[in-house]
Amino acid sequence: MIRNAKLFMLLCLLPFLGQAQTVKSPNGNVTVKFSLTDNGRPTYEMMYKNKAVVKPSHLGLELAKDKHASKGKGETDLMDGFTVAGTKTSAFDETWKPVWGQTATIRNHYNELEVTLNQPDTHRNILIRFRVYDDGMGLRYEFPQQQELNYFLIKEEHTQFAMAGDHTAWWLPGDYDTQEQETQETKLTEIRGRFHDAVNWGNSSVSVFSPTGVQTALQMKTADGLYINIHEAACVDYATMHLNLDDKDKNDLVFESWLTPDATGLKGCMQTPCHTPWRTVMVSDDARDMLSSNLILNLNEPCKIEDTSWIHPTKYCGVWWEMIVGKSSWSYTDQFPSVKLGSIDWKSVKPNGRHAANTEHVKQYIDFAAKNGLQQVLVEGWNVGWEDWADKWKWDVFDFVTPYPDFDIKYLNDYAHSKGVKLMMHHETSSSVINYERHLENALNLMNQYGYDAVKGGYVGDIIPRGDHHYSQSMNNHYLYVVQQAARHHVMVNAHEAVRPTGLCRTWPNLIGNESARGTEYEAFGGSRPDHTVVLPFTRLQGGPMDYTPGILETQLGTWSDNKNTIHTTLVGQLALYLTMYSPLQMAADLPENYAKYDDAFQFIRDVACDWDDSRYLEAEPGDYITVARKAKGTNDWFIGGKCDEQGHKSTVRLDFLDKGRKYDCAIYADAGNASFDKNPKAYTITHRTVKRGDVLRLTEAPGGGFAVSLKAK
Amino acid sequence: MIRNAKLFMLLCLLPFLGQAQTVKSPNGNVTVKFSLTDNGRPTYEMMYKNKAVVKPSHLGLELAKDKHASKGKGETDLMDGFTVAGTKTSAFDETWKPVWGQTATIRNHYNELEVTLNQPDTHRNILIRFRVYDDGMGLRYEFPQQQELNYFLIKEEHTQFAMAGDHTAWWLPGDYDTQEQETQETKLTEIRGRFHDAVNWGNSSVSVFSPTGVQTALQMKTADGLYINIHEAACVDYATMHLNLDDKDKNDLVFESWLTPDATGLKGCMQTPCHTPWRTVMVSDDARDMLSSNLILNLNEPCKIEDTSWIHPTKYCGVWWEMIVGKSSWSYTDQFPSVKLGSIDWKSVKPNGRHAANTEHVKQYIDFAAKNGLQQVLVEGWNVGWEDWADKWKWDVFDFVTPYPDFDIKYLNDYAHSKGVKLMMHHETSSSVINYERHLENALNLMNQYGYDAVKGGYVGDIIPRGDHHYSQSMNNHYLYVVQQAARHHVMVNAHEAVRPTGLCRTWPNLIGNESARGTEYEAFGGSRPDHTVVLPFTRLQGGPMDYTPGILETQLGTWSDNKNTIHTTLVGQLALYLTMYSPLQMAADLPENYAKYDDAFQFIRDVACDWDDSRYLEAEPGDYITVARKAKGTNDWFIGGKCDEQGHKSTVRLDFLDKGRKYDCAIYADAGNASFDKNPKAYTITHRTVKRGDVLRLTEAPGGGFAVSLKAK
Repeated sequence: MIRNAKLFMLLCLLPFLGQAQTVKSPNGNVTVKFSLTDNGRPTYEMMYKNKAVVKPSHLGLELAKDKHASKGKGETDLMDGFTVAGTKTSAFDETWKPVWGQTATIRNHYNELEVTLNQPDTHRNILIRFRVYDDGMGLRYEFPQQQELNYFLIKEEHTQFAMAGDHTAWWLPGDYDTQEQETQETKLTEIRGRFHDAVNWGNSSVSVFSPTGVQTALQMKTADGLYINIHEAACVDYATMHLNLDDKDKNDLVFESWLTPDATGLKGCMQTPCHTPWRTVMVSDDARDMLSSNLILNLNEPCKIEDTSWIHPTKYCGVWWEMIVGKSSWSYTDQFPSVKLGSIDWKSVKPNGRHAANTEHVKQYIDFAAKNGLQQVLVEGWNVGWEDWADKWKWDVFDFVTPYPDFDIKYLNDYAHSKGVKLMMHHETSSSVINYERHLENALNLMNQYGYDAVKGGYVGDIIPRGDHHYSQSMNNHYLYVVQQAARHHVMVNAHEAVRPTGLCRTWPNLIGNESARGTEYEAFGGSRPDHTVVLPFTRLQGGPMDYTPGILETQLGTWSDNKNTIHTTLVGQLALYLTMYSPLQMAADLPENYAKYDDAFQFIRDVACDWDDSRYLEAEPGDYITVARKAKGTNDWFIGGKCDEQGHKSTVRLDFLDKGRKYDCAIYADAGNASFDKNPKAYTITHRTVKRGDVLRLTEAPGGGFAVSLKAK
Repeated sequence: MIRNAKLFMLLCLLPFLGQAQTVKSPNGNVTVKFSLTDNGRPTYEMMYKNKAVVKPSHLGLELAKDKHASKGKGETDLMDGFTVAGTKTSAFDETWKPVWGQTATIRNHYNELEVTLNQPDTHRNILIRFRVYDDGMGLRYEFPQQQELNYFLIKEEHTQFAMAGDHTAWWLPGDYDTQEQETQETKLTEIRGRFHDAVNWGNSSVSVFSPTGVQTALQMKTADGLYINIHEAACVDYATMHLNLDDKDKNDLVFESWLTPDATGLKGCMQTPCHTPWRTVMVSDDARDMLSSNLILNLNEPCKIEDTSWIHPTKYCGVWWEMIVGKSSWSYTDQFPSVKLGSIDWKSVKPNGRHAANTEHVKQYIDFAAKNGLQQVLVEGWNVGWEDWADKWKWDVFDFVTPYPDFDIKYLNDYAHSKGVKLMMHHETSSSVINYERHLENALNLMNQYGYDAVKGGYVGDIIPRGDHHYSQSMNNHYLYVVQQAARHHVMVNAHEAVRPTGLCRTWPNLIGNESARGTEYEAFGGSRPDHTVVLPFTRLQGGPMDYTPGILETQLGTWSDNKNTIHTTLVGQLALYLTMYSPLQMAADLPENYAKYDDAFQFIRDVACDWDDSRYLEAEPGDYITVARKAKGTNDWFIGGKCDEQGHKSTVRLDFLDKGRKYDCAIYADAGNASFDKNPKAYTITHRTVKRGDVLRLTEAPGGGFAVSLKAK
């Protein structure tokens, strides 16, 4: 049966009709060709400089029958039987200004092909729209409102990406609920064999679906040096897409979209007019283009917030790392086997003595922030409910407004404001989503009342309502709902364990950050590989910034806690992350007392900007190294960061981007010659010199290390 | 296998241990005996005047393993292996005043047995509490907070009700989503054979689960004249219970609890301290006791609303029946194949000319209400979204605040208030529950702004989030959440298609009504049997009042519409329902122009009260007839109603309950001698006379008819 099915597919592929439409990118490097098979199945292929990026691949959606449909009336799939009713091509070139970003302006330049398809049997029309950029393309399905297509249910989207070879891939196991795995680097044909070990089975919510299922953004490299990246843009009112690899034929490796289901297994409920997110394929023969590409942002809608003056990139510290490491606790008491909100008189409760979010301690963090130019202090564990919050299927976990008795919310906000600092709110939802929505308005009002303007959210554990998944259509709607409600209150949102971003921060720039990958916390849970952070910019960061929480200068946790883990970078490697992991939200995640120990290195964190007028990726290779220079917003100052994997890296940085005729105070934070992430992580040198345009810096990054440079214009 | 399993059960049942505990009702008529089987399985039996009501039946809960439990660690059921750790008996006698009700005061008089059970293998304790009344008993499971039982998941509750014979039962097919079926009257052994035909397959949401599954309240009658009724009381944070009949052995017919699952099939997520709802068995040898019993209310918590001054029984009319019958529409336009909120400029839309909720038309209803002493006017279809609201899996169906352009919300409320009338709000949720919760606060604020104090809710169609059911734990939480939020806004709630009530109106008396059964609307959809309304008080009404919407005096719809259906009562039968179907919320559901045609009969609806100081059930037989006399709140006036099935009924009413020495103006609305629901429904007589205590009224109810009497104290 399988053999016959394959044969059938080949037969269909061969006799392309003469209706093929081709669209090229502005510079002609990228070509996308659309055609129909002879049974009317939409098909596309993609080339880069005459090399196949995506071999002929089918497009279509399989529909589910609505139980309310009339008896005996099935649902016809939107898979084949199409004729081309019309095509339109157009060109677009616009430069827009992001509210925050890696560059002051972004050019959106593409050629577009719009294909209208008619399915005569059903009298339905759909559109497929291609936008072709010099660094890739996006395609999406569009469903106009029409008499014969008002509502439909998606059983599965079958968008194929047929690969031209057994590429090297940097992948995470496809999972409906978590992205907190270590990246795997294998050939496509090796995914199946590696899959089981790649799953983070210990995560608080795990739902894998196929032994060749992987997540996006999926970074690949071909044998002949092409970098290919598959992701999606503008995922709104739609389930998140994974990719499932058909690896039966080693010479015909085909990825296909695999959406996240709802509790009943269905993958989408649609009402026309509507469209899918963009399915994106980025491509270049230069890995740096993968990092500087704005394709994902460009495929999102322009900003929908009129007044964005309250949105600001932020450097912050927080009462957090000490709990992650295990020295103190989010919870206030150990007195009860479980707690119920509203049934406890917290003032009469016996404290456990380890509660970090207490007034005195938070004051110390506020003082530290004020002294070191950090704008905000995150405080986790400030609100009642942390005694038994996770993995209990508990509905009313938190109310998001009631502080523990030792956290004086009014005093601390007043105190912070008097020092020019703000507290950062924390809303761990425990994935009890209905509970969070019920309390959201009150919670945001409380923030307005006390002067919070940013919230870190959390979605630890399985989703309540039970059966739903972190990346389903309804949950994607929820995350956006929270961002929209927060915008009404002038609140910036940084949601952890939420869906991986797809560029929505262009439309909603108060979505200032996300976690949605394996963050620094895993260094305290057992560690992440040294190459982790030189993969993430190619994958997770394609859709938007990550709140990775770098800056752990005391890389050996045993020096101050009972936690025996060590950070898998050098100390300087931590500094480099402020550049290589772009984010408008940057944490100085270590403890004030640890920064005191390395105050000269901490100077770089004090100095480094988190919003930029320009960014230049100087070197890049996925999983090996990334070097980037960035010009701080509204200044003539530049910062350069280099980060490498466990192999170390030698970097030659030509300062071609500096202003002609201007001199710069240059501070170079480098790994010492004998440094390495595992044996000698905290050996570093700091060198000061004056430099000018055209000078060259030769820098040696230790295994698991990096470098960081600040260039202050004189 | 089945044979062996049965044998095993019998063996377990036989050797009861000598620890049996017995508790009797205050008057000694009802006895409940608790014991453990020799494998430690909790067991109870119940007698009424030495007749078996419930034969020895097991109690227990089957638990599901939590996926987050440590590997290999299963979950031990709370089914057997128990020892009795202690027992306590107590007596209770209290009289309380309901905010509204059939009587001014209610006596709560019971003897209680509390059994503490220990499961040595798990170190867990649970309690089983029995409350024994003269007209029945309630039992529930209680789970104290303890080290070994903090959170648990319910796979199924196994509360058995072993019947002593093949009783006659009035039942509805067990269904997770609807109660809008015709009642079946069969022997227990005939349920299976009748089941398929009993399902209302055409309902907008249907989920049956077993061919012997039935709903509660389940009314039965034994061969020797006992009336037995199984239901539940105070269903809070728990799934609704159905009953599944084990009919394998015709001599051992055992009902067992069958809870409503969530989307994953699980039936409960519990955190201690907590308890189940009460499982109730009412019993008497007089059917009237089934109707006058307050057992369900008594097993609910006292009122939790401090100031109840804003809660008031209400008689109302509404813009409703004309849409149900099909003469006008909820929707405003036929212009679009589907609509999306927020994307339509309603003012520029072409009206369909059939939209009933328009300002001029609503004014007519307001005038009608003001003229006839009706306090409120329900207006359905006032808000945008009715063009495609049901059965679409549509998320954002309504926003509950945007009127159609022809409904002037401010003007109409002002106009109504100037006439001493209020509008009644309507919130059809289309079962898109998350959408409703997101808009709820705004919707209630809008009501406060314009002076609405009551809302009719609706839950038509399958629940969104998909996979959930109308009667699940989470949906039960939702309905209560809405009632609580409404109470904050001083709003009374009357939710249709919501869960069947379990007496929660004692605790939240702003829950002024519910539908949760087959209402009058079905008369326009094809009809309900004439005995329908002489079953409902025994079944659906046990848990709380029903917004049945009686008063359709023009019983032949074809006289004023294209709808060819007829009402399955006589005209006078409709008047009787205001007495026999107790509710503090009573609609005069017919059109003003129909009431004009029968203005002399309509006088009874003008006159009849909807709150009472006293109620006397004079005659009752399930499915045959009900006669009740009620004393209007705060007056000396009485009203009497009699309703019968298709057989007709002769009623002799002795006016023993009138004040001694007082005279009453008596108006008797009776079926004419040749009246019948099917052949001559609108033949009636109205007789006036003066009566006094001790007089006797002899009344003949036509097939499908009834009578209505008003007695105004002189």
